[in-house]
Formats: sequence, structure tokens, C-alpha cells
Amino acid sequence: MGIVVQKYGGTSVGTIERIQAVAKRVAETRAAGHQLVVVVSAIAGETNRLIGLGQAMSKTPADREMDVLVASGEQVSSALLSLALNEIGVPAASLLAHQVRILTDTKHARARIQSIDATRMRELLDAGTVAVIAGFQGVDKDGNITTLGRGGTDTTAVAVAAALNADVCEIFTDVDGVYTTDPNVCSSARKVPRISYEEMLELASLGAKVLQIRSVELGMKFGVPIHVRSSFSAVEGTMVVKEEEALESVVVSGVACNKREAKVTIQGVPDHPGAVAAIFEPLADSNISVDMIIQNVSKEGTTDITFTVNGEDLVAAERVATEVSKAGGAGGVLVDDGIAKISVVGLGMRSHAGVAAKMFRLLAAEGINIEAISTSEIKVSCLIRERYSELAVRVLHEGFELGKKPSTLPPGLA
Amino acid sequence: MGIVVQKYGGTSVGTIERIQAVAKRVAETRAAGHQLVVVVSAIAGETNRLIGLGQAMSKTPADREMDVLVASGEQVSSALLSLALNEIGVPAASLLAHQVRILTDTKHARARIQSIDATRMRELLDAGTVAVIAGFQGVDKDGNITTLGRGGTDTTAVAVAAALNADVCEIFTDVDGVYTTDPNVCSSARKVPRISYEEMLELASLGAKVLQIRSVELGMKFGVPIHVRSSFSAVEGTMVVKEEEALESVVVSGVACNKREAKVTIQGVPDHPGAVAAIFEPLADSNISVDMIIQNVSKEGTTDITFTVNGEDLVAAERVATEVSKAGGAGGVLVDDGIAKISVVGLGMRSHAGVAAKMFRLLAAEGINIEAISTSEIKVSCLIRERYSELAVRVLHEGFELGKKPSTLPPGLA
Repeated sequence: MGIVVQKYGGTSVGTIERIQAVAKRVAETRAAGHQLVVVVSAIAGETNRLIGLGQAMSKTPADREMDVLVASGEQVSSALLSLALNEIGVPAASLLAHQVRILTDTKHARARIQSIDATRMRELLDAGTVAVIAGFQGVDKDGNITTLGRGGTDTTAVAVAAALNADVCEIFTDVDGVYTTDPNVCSSARKVPRISYEEMLELASLGAKVLQIRSVELGMKFGVPIHVRSSFSAVEGTMVVKEEEALESVVVSGVACNKREAKVTIQGVPDHPGAVAAIFEPLADSNISVDMIIQNVSKEGTTDITFTVNGEDLVAAERVATEVSKAGGAGGVLVDDGIAKISVVGLGMRSHAGVAAKMFRLLAAEGINIEAISTSEIKVSCLIRERYSELAVRVLHEGFELGKKPSTLPPGLA
Repeated sequence: MGIVVQKYGGTSVGTIERIQAVAKRVAETRAAGHQLVVVVSAIAGETNRLIGLGQAMSKTPADREMDVLVASGEQVSSALLSLALNEIGVPAASLLAHQVRILTDTKHARARIQSIDATRMRELLDAGTVAVIAGFQGVDKDGNITTLGRGGTDTTAVAVAAALNADVCEIFTDVDGVYTTDPNVCSSARKVPRISYEEMLELASLGAKVLQIRSVELGMKFGVPIHVRSSFSAVEGTMVVKEEEALESVVVSGVACNKREAKVTIQGVPDHPGAVAAIFEPLADSNISVDMIIQNVSKEGTTDITFTVNGEDLVAAERVATEVSKAGGAGGVLVDDGIAKISVVGLGMRSHAGVAAKMFRLLAAEGINIEAISTSEIKVSCLIRERYSELAVRVLHEGFELGKKPSTLPPGLA
């Protein structure tokens, strides 16, 4: 008996029948003695339909109004699920962002949650009622409607779980957990029963689209256990938990691949203090999110700066880079969207040397050239030609023995 | 230069092109130097679509959740109109009920507005921004979403105009004003340039579906001039104003017909104190709205009680009436949905005798039998067989000379 938060995505509430199936699942959890808060996305396709309407009205639609528009999708699904629950005898009430005071900053379309008032939810739970929260939406301090960006309902769910000090936040989705790599690319990919927040963060940011990054950050900050599992089956999924609770002490826990990035190189940048800031400030001002940044040692007073951006930002990034290059007396700009970023992630590499070296050797053995490298404490990423990406995933997955169930001892590094 | 409130109904915002046409009209009004608040309905058909979804989820959907569901329709249209205004260079911002604090009672699906906080709207107007209010919706004291019933956007508009002390509330609709009777039934029907709130109230409640009754009540209470006019043309419509400003001092200003009512008679009700209350209390408890109530003098210690209800409430009303009849020892229940209510309305009849007599004579001359009569200060209503309703409208319209432009003196009563 405790508080359980369940999040259902757009596919899970995609039709009337699926909403009824969700209601049945919620009823079962409640019958097991739990107090329940459910957080829902808009019906699959609805957000895109609303965005299409908004874009039909304006070529440069104001973010504030787009947020009002798309937030209606979750309003509809939260009311529909509440009705479906009532119909099978479960007391339920929908709550919108302004009713739970999901307070965010004022950055429309990508707002961040600052606080949640749990009072109203607790009242409902104490009365035996299921609270059905409209995901993805918030309000700023002036009561304007904001939204949290793609995948934002995950973040609503984890934030609600944190505010209620819930026992678990269950994320129901169309996959049944977190895998060592993409099962569509590598047939020996294995579902991981437990994974740490840190590893999940790296995997999420590397393109394993299971959870919104911000939701994992919040889960880590407030210690909310996150259970990623399938809407369409009852099997256990993957628990995202604190490092000390992530039982598998393996060196490498997953291989991720992101083919949506593109590479920009500014050649011959004069090497003096402020030169790099002069490149990345205008990119930030243009709302272009930069992922990897690589700068090598300077030769003859100039250096080449390479960075990667989301493929859809490439045109804008090239324009800004070209302006910056001219203004700063650099040698010119090269762009390349035929790349893939391949990464290995694992807490174990903090204490085990040689992961990077092994990765480079595995790729080299297949004749895959590495064009750039970037590392963090628990991650090594390489840019390679996009056409080698599936091959690279399989080679690394096999080389790090991720398909095998881990023994109590971490596998030795060759 | 002053504050103008404009209301656009679902047909007026029925397509992307029509929303753009509304934006153009709003821009013109603003260019003429007015401060503007626009109140919008949901896109035509959207409310019914949402109700259909809700009914698919539950056979007896909770009013609270249905209000959350259908209120999303006005959220969408207010955002879309704001985007369309921005696109043609007009600063605009949508505002939902919780953002303007349109406070209502807690009666879901038929809530009544209690107050509106004009602060946020005034800030926008002072900044030169058009405020686009989502109509039809409110919030109760606990922040639950409520809706105002069919036609509720009219009431939002008039209430907003009252809160802002606006110069005029323009109701844009698919007819170009208020007519002396239905132009589809009587070719000599004439548009009335000015009409009093009192007359409009009687006409609205009698089935002239131009304005929600509650909006006229609010207009009368706060002295808001209401201009009913067409979305699709620039011609002047009908001004609904105070009696002393309603220039046409005619005896009868309109003929209305309502074919949607049905008649219930409880025969042989024992004539003692409390007998009538025992009939109408259970009807009210079952949310059945009763229109006419007719009780004639008692014979032999019993009396017949006749009342009319909306046709769609007839089955429920018959059930309640039968229970009441049994419990109270009455003689039985007769129901009849083949009736029409035909009415003449006019301020002048307060001081001119003979309107009722003339009405009865005009009907009798055509062989139309009168089955029940009910009167108010400015209205006479008769129940007749439904098949005579069009004939009755034409006879009364001609007999009271409503097709003629009125002279300064009221037409004499024959």
C-alpha cells in the first residue's frame, strides 16, 4: 500500500478502446491497495494535428498561443480517462496544470517545472479518488499556459511522483524497458532489469528515446524510482534507480546510436581568448542546441572548431557559423550530415581503464573510421560515417558482451 | 474610441478561412480606434464531437469531466484566432476562464457567472493588445472548470462587456438581427432595429434562438447595449437596449413559435394545500425544466394540472408525473407532444388592453383551437395543434401589422 504514479503516453491512449484498457489497468492497481495518480499524454496524433492548425493560421506562430493550443490535447485525454474510470466504478477526477499549480518558468514550448502543489492531489487520494493529471502542461507565475517540450509528460509524471513522495513512477510506453542497445539493430540486445539514473541520462541524451532527459534528472534529484514498462503487457520493465541500487555492476551497460545529428566545422579560427565564446553565443541566441564540441590543439595561431547539432537545426547553424566565421576572420565553414554518433555508456568505466581503447579497436577492426571523439565520465562517443552505424552497434554490443546476462563480477576487459 | 466586445459563434470560426475573416474584421474595428475584446465559441461541430467522445467513454458521463472535455474547444479557437490576428500584425493574446477568473457557481454544464476579474484584460487593452477570451467556460471557487450551457458564449461576452463597462457588446451570428417573426415562416417578417431587453427576453425564451437568455438578463442588469448582427455582412443588425431607448413604441413587437414543447396533464388532483408543490418538487429534483403551468378552478374537490416541458424531457416528465399521480391519489396522466406554443410579445401590451382578445379572435377566424393560455406582462402564449403553427404565425404577424414600418403612433387595436 503506497502512492503509485502511472504515466500513459499517446499511443497508450490512442483510441477509445485503449483508453478503456488503461482504465482497466488503473483499476487493477487500485484494487491491489495503492493510491493512484495517473498522468496522460494527448491521444496519439492529436498534438501534431493541433500544431498543423496553428501553422495554418500563422507562418511564425507565437509560442504562447501554440502552448494554449496544444495543451488542449492533454485536457481532452485526462477528461476521457476520468470518464472511462468512472464507467467501471472507479472514482476519478481530471486535474489540469493550473489546478495542481504545476509552476514552470516562462519559456514557452520548452518550459521547466519549478514546483507542484500536492494539496489537491492528496485530498483526492485521501478520498479514494484517482487523480488524472494532464501531462505536458504547466503554468507560469502569471498563469500563462506553458508546455514542457516533446516527451514532457514523462517529466510531469516524475515531478508529480516527487511532489507526492510516491513509491514508484511507472512510465507505460510502447517498449517494454531499456535495452543494452536497439533490438531492431542488434538481435542480441538484452533488456536491463535495473539501470542507474546516470546511465539512463547518458542513454536518453544519446538517442534512446525511452524517457525525456528532464524526467530522469528530476528522478535522480528527488530519488524517485522510475519503472519503464509496456502498456501492452504485464511483464516487468526496467527500474531506473540510484547507483547503489543498480545491481548489475557491469563496466558498460549500453550502446546508443544517434543518426539525427549533423557536424559543423569552422576552419582556421584565430586562437585567442573569446574566440570560442564568439561562436557559441550566437548559436545559443538562435536557440540552436549544440551537442558535442571538439577543439584540437592550435597550429600556426589558428584552430579548427567542430560541433554537432540536431539535423533539423543544420541550416540555421550553418548560417550562424558562416556569419561568425566572416566576422571573426576564420577560414570557412564545412557542414556534414552524413554522420552518426555511436556511444558506449556505463558507470563501470569510471573505475575501469581501457573502455575507450577497446571501443576504438573494435571499430578499427571493421574498418570504421573515427572522425571525432568526445567523452564524459561514464560515456565515450565517436562520430562515424552514418552508413556504418548499424554495423558499429552490433560490433560494440558483441565486443562488450552486452548480450550475456552479467555475472556478479564485471567481465574483464581484454 | 471606446471599449468594444465582439462575440463570434461557432459558424463564424468554422474554418481556417473564416477565422482569418474574423481576424480581418477585428483588425478593422481596432483600426477605427477601439479597444477590443473578442469572445469566441468552439469551431462549429467541435463541441458535438467532444460530447460524442465523452459519451463513448461513459453512458452516464460525469458533468465535471464533460465540462473539462468540451471547454477544450474554446481553448483551441481562442488560440487560433490570436495566431490569425498576430499574422496580420495585430497584437493579440488568448485568455481562458481561469486566467480572467470567470467565477461561476458549481453547477456543471449550466453554471452561472458570478464575477469576472477585469484586471488582466485591462492590462492587455492598455498595451494595445486584443484580448481573445475563450467563451462558454468558467471556473468555480475551487478552480474546477465549468461551462455555461448551450449559447453560453453569448453570456461570456455580455458579462465581459459589463465587467469592462464596454460601450457595446456585438454578437456576430449567422442571422443579421432580430425579426418580428421567423422569416422562413412569414415572408413579411421585418428586422427590428431596436428592441428592449424585456421583449428580447420573452422572445429568446420563446424559441427565437438568437441570444442565450442569460446573456439578455445580464445585459439588462448591467445596462450593456447588445448589438446582434451578421458575421457575413457589414449591415447594422438589432440593438437590444433599455426600454426608454427602444424607439419603436409598438404594442406588439414580435411573434414567436416553439414546436419543441410537450404537454403533460395530471387529472383529478385532490385540491388541498401542498398538492401542487408535491408535483413540481420531484420534477425540479429530476432537473426537468417546466415552462407553462396551468391550473384551472377546482371542481368537486379535484383539479386538473397541465404543464409543458421540453420535448426531450417528456419521457422523464411522464415517469415523474405518473409516480406523483399515484402517490397523491390523482386520476391519471395524459401526455401530448403534438402541440406548438405560439406567442405575441410587446412592451406596449402593458398599457394597451385587448391584445390577448385580438390574438384569440385572429386564431379563431382561421379555425385554430386554443388548448391552453398563459400570459405575462408583455406576452400572451397559446398552445395549439402543431400542424397549425406556421399558419398561426402568419395570421398573427399580419393581424398585428408587424410587417409595416411602425409610425410614431402605435397602430390602433381593432
